[in-house]
Formats: sequence, C-alpha cells, structure tokens
Amino acid sequence: MKNKKEITAGIIIIGNEVLSGRTKDLNTSTLSIWLNSLGINVQEVRVIPDVEKTIINTVNELKNKFDYVFTTGGIGPTHDDITAESIAKAFNIEYGFQKEAFSILEKYYEPGQFNEGRQKMAKMPTTAKLILNPSSGAPGFYVENVFCLPGVPEILKAMIGGLNNILIGGDPILSKTINLRTYESEIAKSLTDVQNNNSEVEIGSYPFFRQGKLGVSIVLRSVDQNKIDECNSQILEFVEKKNIEIVEID
Amino acid sequence: MKNKKEITAGIIIIGNEVLSGRTKDLNTSTLSIWLNSLGINVQEVRVIPDVEKTIINTVNELKNKFDYVFTTGGIGPTHDDITAESIAKAFNIEYGFQKEAFSILEKYYEPGQFNEGRQKMAKMPTTAKLILNPSSGAPGFYVENVFCLPGVPEILKAMIGGLNNILIGGDPILSKTINLRTYESEIAKSLTDVQNNNSEVEIGSYPFFRQGKLGVSIVLRSVDQNKIDECNSQILEFVEKKNIEIVEID
Repeated sequence: MKNKKEITAGIIIIGNEVLSGRTKDLNTSTLSIWLNSLGINVQEVRVIPDVEKTIINTVNELKNKFDYVFTTGGIGPTHDDITAESIAKAFNIEYGFQKEAFSILEKYYEPGQFNEGRQKMAKMPTTAKLILNPSSGAPGFYVENVFCLPGVPEILKAMIGGLNNILIGGDPILSKTINLRTYESEIAKSLTDVQNNNSEVEIGSYPFFRQGKLGVSIVLRSVDQNKIDECNSQILEFVEKKNIEIVEID
Repeated sequence: MKNKKEITAGIIIIGNEVLSGRTKDLNTSTLSIWLNSLGINVQEVRVIPDVEKTIINTVNELKNKFDYVFTTGGIGPTHDDITAESIAKAFNIEYGFQKEAFSILEKYYEPGQFNEGRQKMAKMPTTAKLILNPSSGAPGFYVENVFCLPGVPEILKAMIGGLNNILIGGDPILSKTINLRTYESEIAKSLTDVQNNNSEVEIGSYPFFRQGKLGVSIVLRSVDQNKIDECNSQILEFVEKKNIEIVEID
C-alpha cells in the first residue's frame, strides 16, 4: 500500500527501564495513534539503552531514513538523563543553556528552588526549539526533524498537542476493525483473496483472547474510506457464507 | 557496567499492529524479565512492519550484533504472517514443511480439519528446530541464534520456558527498587555521587505518578548482590539526611 504522499516517522525509546522489562512502553502507542491522525506513518521503533554512542548513532541513522524522528526519555535532571547532550553531539551543536528554557524554568520554580538539578533541564543543543510542557514546566525540544519528548507517558501526552501545527502530515490513515468469533486458519484463504483484490488496503489479522474466548480482529487500513468500505463488504460476504459470528465492527 | 561474562540479546517485534498504535507491545517486557533471569541482557528492541525486506535486513543485522535474537509475531496462518518465509530467506535455507511440525499439527487437529491455512503453520526454514507450544499446537522455531515466537502474549509466555535449557546465559542480573516520595531534581546531585562511587551498579532514576502522587523509583541493577546492597545503603543515607519519605523498597 502506498499513500499518494507518504510521510514517515521513526520512534526511539531511550531507557534501560524498558529494556530491562521493568517498564512497559506506552509511548509508542500514544505517538503512533497521534501521528496516524496527522497522516504520518510510523515505520520503525527502536528501544535503546542510556548509552551516548548508541543514542548518537541511532539518531543519525533514523533522521536520514524518515521524515520525522521522535525520541522519548532521558531529558530529566538525573545522571542517567543523557538524551539532550547526545542529540547536541549527533547534530554537532553546542550543549548548554537554551535561554528560553532557562527563563521558563526560572519563573516556574519558587525563588531559591531553581537548583543545579533543575537547571540541567534547561541544558540542550543551544539552538534547539522548545516543545512546551503544560504539566511540569520542563520543556522538550527539537532540532531539525528530531523531536525530543520526556519518557513519562502522562507528560508526553500533555505535550504532543503543541506540535500539531509544526508537523506537516500527509493523508490521514483511516482504519476499520472487524472482530470475529473464529480462528485465523478458518478465514486465512478467504482473507488472502480479499487482500489480493484490494491492494490499496492493508489488511491485518490478529488473534485475540478476551474473557476466555478466542477470536480474530481483522484490521483494514487505508487513506481511502471507499476502499476500506469495499474491502469490508467483501469480508462480510465470506463471513456470512461461513456462518461466522461477528463480535463487533468499529 | 560490564558483567564478567555478558550475554546479549536483541528483540524484533514484527507487526503493523504495534506500529499503528493499535496494540501495545507486552512481549518485550515478558522476554526481558525472563532473559534477565537467565543472565541474558537485552540491549535493543526493534519494532518493524510485516515487510519481507525489512524483516530479512533486521534479522541479518541483529543476529551478528547480539548473542541471541528473538522475534515475535508473524508466524500464524494468514497472508500477513511472513516471518517464517523471511527467516528462511535471511539464512538462505529452503522454506517448506518442517516434518516434525507437520506431524505435530496433523495429530493436533481432528481428521479432515488440518486445512491449507493450518498447514501453513508447519512451513518454515526446513532445517529449523522447533519451540514447542503447549497451548495451541503450532510451534515456534529457531535457526542458529534466532528464535521465532508468536505475537500473542499468552501463547508466547507459555512457550518460552521450553528454551531454558537451550539458551546459555551469563550471571543473572539482580535488581533492587527504592521508591521515594520526592522529585528527581531533589536527589539528582546525591544520586550522581552514588553512581560515581559505584561504577559496577547501574543506577536508573524514574519519576512516577501513582494514585495522584508523584514519586521517584531508583532502580539498582548489577550481577553482584553485595554491590547492590552497598549502593542501597549509600542511597538510604542521603534519603535520611534529606528527610525524604520511603514509599517502599523491593
């Protein structure tokens, strides 16, 4: 499936806590759903450790591969927060106080409370532009096509809306999900036929367990609603023939 | 931090459903916790689409980079399940029925029910070894250091135990978590000092929101329990001095 104008993105999740299994990554899902709504297609996610060389290499690779790159994590005040300095090195830009960020944080904290740890959050590539943070003062930032966001899911969610007018998207990617009470192997052949007849719709098939019962979610994705609807009809046709129960369509 | 004998792994999550944001990846967490318990350190995760060329390139890159590679997803019966064929191409091995897999599935289904879709699940690199599946018949497989598991979290969980005697791990990675009622910026400097004095312990600091309250989780990881305990004492020392509330330690 090719969009008329496909805009792509890669996501870099920076953090040992995800690699160790301690923390489940929720940010990919938040970012992907939001980016899809802007017509930006996430094509790759990498989870990497808090290691400077790895961050620099991954950013340099993905910023050339995709239209946009989003990083999450590593922009807080502690010793393991090395994203901002690594991004400065990746772009060969001076790392230091970004004046606007310093001023925002200075105003945010009570007099005398803007300590060394907090000041670190104003350090980044000095020419970076800010991504404002309505929930806790400390901003994210972007350099060229690389957007750096915090790892805490609630704060990330509060910040991304501020980028809606900065990112340039393509045609929004639409989707429809058909949940059936069946097994994948019962519908595999019919579904292959439908996919072969509908090359501009991406058809995914995903088994699920819900409340102790097995089922299959068929997900149709395309930039063209008519093509999704046509594909949907063809699927419902074989579903009826095979006498398969429809759990829900949305 | 370097283990005496560090064994590494990479994870490849194959599936458009994760990239679209529809499905949150739970398998990384399951695999990482399990691999850590075997002394295998997950160093990178990639989420990639159901695209043959991407699967082949990613597998070829990571199998040379890490001791072990685990893939999840794309080994079912439908048209979008292309992992097995892609792995065969990556290793330049014939793709076809693996005899043992065919025999397991043939016995698993009622006579006459082993249809074309189901037979597809016995197709893989013909010389692959099987990863048995206690929950639904269809096995995973491995070729050299690349282990291919299904995407459904419940089934994956049921299968990984079968690999405990096949994987060769290093020293198990131990951890301790100290949850504090504080802000990262309050402890950043003290924590940096502790990290500088304890280079063999990896110290992570992660802000959290729980039941409407802010806090910080400090996670200590090392192969050496004594070094974790020493580090823990040094942290509790500054926590007491600063009069910070301890939420829990585990």
